[in-house]
Parts: sequence; structure tokens; C-alpha cells
Amino acid sequence: MNRVKSPLEAAASLTELWSPRVIAELDDSYVKVAKLKGTLAWHSHDDEDELFMVLKGSLRIEFESGHVKLQEGDLHVIPKGVRHNPVADEECLVMLVERKSTLHTGKVRTSKTRDISEQLLEFEVSNQQSSEGRK
Amino acid sequence: MNRVKSPLEAAASLTELWSPRVIAELDDSYVKVAKLKGTLAWHSHDDEDELFMVLKGSLRIEFESGHVKLQEGDLHVIPKGVRHNPVADEECLVMLVERKSTLHTGKVRTSKTRDISEQLLEFEVSNQQSSEGRK
Repeated sequence: MNRVKSPLEAAASLTELWSPRVIAELDDSYVKVAKLKGTLAWHSHDDEDELFMVLKGSLRIEFESGHVKLQEGDLHVIPKGVRHNPVADEECLVMLVERKSTLHTGKVRTSKTRDISEQLLEFEVSNQQSSEGRK
Repeated sequence: MNRVKSPLEAAASLTELWSPRVIAELDDSYVKVAKLKGTLAWHSHDDEDELFMVLKGSLRIEFESGHVKLQEGDLHVIPKGVRHNPVADEECLVMLVERKSTLHTGKVRTSKTRDISEQLLEFEVSNQQSSEGRK
């Protein structure tokens, strides 16, 4: 845990869409990265806020009352209880910060839903600029 | 709160060094930005982990047992209880995620120490690309 220095490189290394992976632990929260394309599912998290930050590309987060469009570098916190649906028209890399108790798609389960045990799996980060190389 | 879309633009707008400002709330944590140059102070947070992400420039975080060098886009979580001292040889913009209870410089107080009331002050974000303009 907490081995990854570059969330962007970690996210770029992912091979599966909509499959968040934990890269760091922050008290009772996890920092995750994900590669997105297409749409996830309408859902909400009753008890947890959720932070999205776009590392590459752009992301639209739909709400019942509208949407927010995030460009590279933008950040948005979805308040607990707010139904939302992330949509990536093109492939997009994101970082997430959310409490450990947060379920991927809330109470909804789809074929894309990933349990926390899957999100905690190790994965290979192919960083062309290693931490050593960049010192 | 949670008005800022671009942490980078928010950080760039800051006029005072080493004076973190809250840009979003995430459950019992705050997301902050800061502009750094020079050194802060050796300190630790007994009960809170602390996330640093470099938005622009580079940052060295010194530990008693060594240091970590973060380049643009890099992230590092400082575990609770670990003494550290951030050093920016050149001006650097960072994003922080830390629990609301986190004291700026732990139990140490210096002229640079900013209370949470100061960190919560509103500030003007001069974003050339407004959220409207970028839709």
C-alpha cells in the first residue's frame, strides 16, 4: 500500500474499465484510480461523500438535477445521498478518494460492480519514469 | 464550499505561502490547496494521515529516516505519527487531503502556522477558464 507515487501512471496501467484499484490508504479512506469509458450505473452512497479527480481526459457526472463536466485536473465531491452516474464519452483516467465502507455502485449491483476485495488487488504499474529515475 | 473545480487554479490564485485553504469537504476531511516555497517546520500529526499531491513544481518531504521527492502529479501519504518537514526549493503548488482535526504544524507553532479558521477563509480563484467557459 502507498507504493504508488503517480496516480496517473497507476491509472494508465489498468487494463480493465470501471474497475477501481486502491493505491493508498488515508485513515478510514482509500485513494483509488480507475480507467473509465462509457457509463457505470445510476447509484448513490447513503453515508459517504465521494471525491472524483480527473487525471486525463474528461468526465461527465450526471445528476437527477443536471450534470457536471470535469476536464483534466478538475475535482468534484459528490455529497452523500446524491444519485449520480459517471459517463466518459472517451477513455478517461480518474483518482477517487472515498471512505473504506463505500460500495462501488451503492446498493445497485451490475456486471461492472467490483467488491472492495477486487479493488484491493495488487497490479503492475508500468511507470516509464520510475521513482528512482525521477530523483 | 466545493465550488472549486480546478485545484491547480485555486492553488495558483493564492497570494500567501504556506497558508493552506480549504476548497472542498469530504465527510470528516478537508481538501486543501497551498502554495509552498522554502520550508515549513518539523512536525507530526499524532492521529491523522496526511495526503500530499503535487499539482505544479516539485516537493521534497523530509523524514527522520530519509526523504521522498514528489514531482508534478505525484502523491504521497504521510502516516500518522511520522515526523516530517516539507521543503520546496522552488515554488510549488499542492493539494492536501486531511481530516478536519488535523493541525497545520501538529503540536508545533511557528509564525507560519495557520489555524483552521484561517484555512477556511474564502478566496478569489482567478480561473481564466471558468467552469462555464469550459463546458
